[in-house]
Amino acid sequence: MIENEFVRRLTRRFPNLPPVEVGIGDDGAVLSNVSGTPVVVVTDLLLDGVHFDLRVTSPQLVGRKSIAVNLSDLAAMACEPTAAFISIAVPKSLRGDAASFLEALYSGIEEMTTEYGFTLAGGDTNAWDGAFAINVCLTGTPMKNSPVLRSGAKAGDVLFVTGPLGGSLHHGRHLTFSPRLDVARWLVSNTSVHAMMDLSDGLSMDLHRMMEASHTGAVLESAHIPVHSDVPLLLSDRERLAAALGDGEDFELLLSVSESDAATLPDLAERAGFQLVRIGRVVEGSELLLQDKHGRRSPLEITGWQHVAD
Amino acid sequence: MIENEFVRRLTRRFPNLPPVEVGIGDDGAVLSNVSGTPVVVVTDLLLDGVHFDLRVTSPQLVGRKSIAVNLSDLAAMACEPTAAFISIAVPKSLRGDAASFLEALYSGIEEMTTEYGFTLAGGDTNAWDGAFAINVCLTGTPMKNSPVLRSGAKAGDVLFVTGPLGGSLHHGRHLTFSPRLDVARWLVSNTSVHAMMDLSDGLSMDLHRMMEASHTGAVLESAHIPVHSDVPLLLSDRERLAAALGDGEDFELLLSVSESDAATLPDLAERAGFQLVRIGRVVEGSELLLQDKHGRRSPLEITGWQHVAD
Repeated sequence: MIENEFVRRLTRRFPNLPPVEVGIGDDGAVLSNVSGTPVVVVTDLLLDGVHFDLRVTSPQLVGRKSIAVNLSDLAAMACEPTAAFISIAVPKSLRGDAASFLEALYSGIEEMTTEYGFTLAGGDTNAWDGAFAINVCLTGTPMKNSPVLRSGAKAGDVLFVTGPLGGSLHHGRHLTFSPRLDVARWLVSNTSVHAMMDLSDGLSMDLHRMMEASHTGAVLESAHIPVHSDVPLLLSDRERLAAALGDGEDFELLLSVSESDAATLPDLAERAGFQLVRIGRVVEGSELLLQDKHGRRSPLEITGWQHVAD
Repeated sequence: MIENEFVRRLTRRFPNLPPVEVGIGDDGAVLSNVSGTPVVVVTDLLLDGVHFDLRVTSPQLVGRKSIAVNLSDLAAMACEPTAAFISIAVPKSLRGDAASFLEALYSGIEEMTTEYGFTLAGGDTNAWDGAFAINVCLTGTPMKNSPVLRSGAKAGDVLFVTGPLGGSLHHGRHLTFSPRLDVARWLVSNTSVHAMMDLSDGLSMDLHRMMEASHTGAVLESAHIPVHSDVPLLLSDRERLAAALGDGEDFELLLSVSESDAATLPDLAERAGFQLVRIGRVVEGSELLLQDKHGRRSPLEITGWQHVAD
């Protein structure tokens, strides 16, 4: 069973009930609040040996990343963070090193909560015989009136990404990236964003999820997909494109806006200090296609990361 | 470093910032909401080999317990659940059994969400080489105007528990208990509860935490502490009392009300079908004392569970 199917099953099993307006399947959940602002909740579990490797990565960077990936989910929903809830499983094998490990971990966490202006409001701490695991849950509040969802893309829309893709894991960018709250804030103030999500599992996989949520298809233009300088120049063009489409953990935003808004958006963004790269279009149907520079189209292979194997 | 001290340090490091009204150190956090109802957030991480043992416990009971312990935290704050967020780390060693494992786990979860009328609204699922871990985060809303905290006990108050204590882990009660939402609901409608928390780590430890939060001390009457029938009758009276004070995972509520309200409360509760056992008093100072049937007082030994050793 793979993650997409697992999530689909959960969605059928646990339908939304008030106050849940948006539940399983988006970057976060939206809870309505009687006569108040909706509350948005995002959560991510990070595991030693999967999302980081404590043999080579400092606890401080692990703490930083555990907050950053959740901030990226909030950015995707155009929300500001309001509080963090952190649960950790600490290996008993750390023994006397537990205190300095926790000190470093929480200094990485504090770096992020200070930079983004929110606080740690709760959590749970346990020791066990297993490896280190950390779950972060963030609450958030919309930057404008309401959160931006994955499900709002419309046929005819233009697709953008906020920066170059690929090579994040090999170059450690996944530990040090800045979540795109600033560009999200600029976007919701300067245009109408139909759909948005963050790129954690690779553009092809995440585009598939956004288009499925929106009941639309997409055509990406291979020549326009920005390949990150972290992807080796020695690779062939085909391999470099595959890295941008499938490596994952880029934590840039993928978004869809109307054709009319799209025309001026990259220039406006550039003047504000942001990058918006036009990578393709939303179309009717459910197909995902890749169009080469000669206009030839082929099915987009979904190569990204699915978390539950077998 | 032990848990109480670790939590104290975090509290100093991460002071409350709006909208966080109550942060680290209570059963859950309280977030204010402009012109709306406050949102309460609780979270608990449960680990194989610590909080359950998958060699002898079904995934269904694990799912059930993971929700129940969080509902117990909400009951302690006199809040109704509104949504669940569940992150799981699934052992790769399950291979082909992963699907049936997850099916059983989520059927135990669904049992609880259906019984208590809320839904699963999000989460995260990962496979790894480690053992099974599950983090549950619940959002909640106050049963009456505002949540009940640990910090409201006053010298002169009377302390109650909602049922007998001890022997939970050995008898598997920790897997099947009913979180005390019903009695919490009755309490906030029928009296003024000054402080409340749930008993997860043993009465002596949890009382210590409540009194510390309230800047008060307490005197427990050993003859009045209700010992659960799960505690073997073959044990000495002294051992049976120690089990009630230190075994943990009872998930009854500990609460404090004024002397005048306390007089009639147990009878009123009994007529409504609830048990309230008067176990002692809140006093000035910070000492915790145990008074025997002859009126002799000795320091209460804190024997409960602390999660982070060394």
